[in-house]
Amino acid sequence: MGLFSKDVKTLDDLFVHTLQDIYYAENQITKALPKMIEKATDPLLKQGFEIHLRETENQIKRLEQVFEMHGQKVKAVTCPAIDGIIKETNELAGEIADKEVLDAALVASAQAVEHYEITRYGTLIAWAKQLGRADCASVLQQNLDEEKATDQKLTSMAESKVNRQAA
Amino acid sequence: MGLFSKDVKTLDDLFVHTLQDIYYAENQITKALPKMIEKATDPLLKQGFEIHLRETENQIKRLEQVFEMHGQKVKAVTCPAIDGIIKETNELAGEIADKEVLDAALVASAQAVEHYEITRYGTLIAWAKQLGRADCASVLQQNLDEEKATDQKLTSMAESKVNRQAA
Repeated sequence: MGLFSKDVKTLDDLFVHTLQDIYYAENQITKALPKMIEKATDPLLKQGFEIHLRETENQIKRLEQVFEMHGQKVKAVTCPAIDGIIKETNELAGEIADKEVLDAALVASAQAVEHYEITRYGTLIAWAKQLGRADCASVLQQNLDEEKATDQKLTSMAESKVNRQAA
Repeated sequence: MGLFSKDVKTLDDLFVHTLQDIYYAENQITKALPKMIEKATDPLLKQGFEIHLRETENQIKRLEQVFEMHGQKVKAVTCPAIDGIIKETNELAGEIADKEVLDAALVASAQAVEHYEITRYGTLIAWAKQLGRADCASVLQQNLDEEKATDQKLTSMAESKVNRQAA
């Protein structure tokens, strides 16, 4: 939630600002995922990232729907948090030669991304409800449910195959 | 997980690197929390942040214990993710005049911090177990349990008083 915060005066402003923040984040994720797909060596992990890329594209459409429902034009504001998470992923992934260790690092990075999204969607849903926008909350809930499901899949991977190979 | 990733060759290296990453993050959080305590207007939120500051100091000691148990010297590596989250908090909090809206933003920021910690501790615990270090996993689990409890308290606040006032 970087720029234009001077315009945040009400909870409604904060809701819209955070919507712009997660819209930026989801778009950055669609740019980061193809590199992660390319780097991943475990076929299941690669496939998981591919599915998540499709989901993210769909989540972006849902966000655009929420902007429209709330009478706002679609806009992104720079989000230093997701930039930081993606920067960490790229720096680390660029340096690990061992394939299984690289996969383990990629799973951890993807989970950091998921948790950022989970916290922001949780916040947005709480605020949407308080603003009397159950309709917006309902669309955002679909994104949250998908992010939580993805995180659980990644946890299973971290606790099983990928990382056991790495150990 | 920024620097020195060239040294990451094994899962053990990755574990130590991520330990250094969360050690940096927890230390940055102890620097950020006093400003959040100062800015928070709701007494319950202020008190919550104060408790979390004490907890974070204790979590840092546990991390130092894990470094020692694992035969590593205590070290921090720059973590762009937590830097990004804290940067967002400061930028936004510095610009919101309305006290209740500011509190709502602070709760959201604190939850973003919690989720970063939750994902990193989850990863570290999984790796510690795979490395046969159930003892390290057990100490890290204490930090994870505290972070999850803090996140739940913040969720309750976001869904009740603080944000209802702001709405």
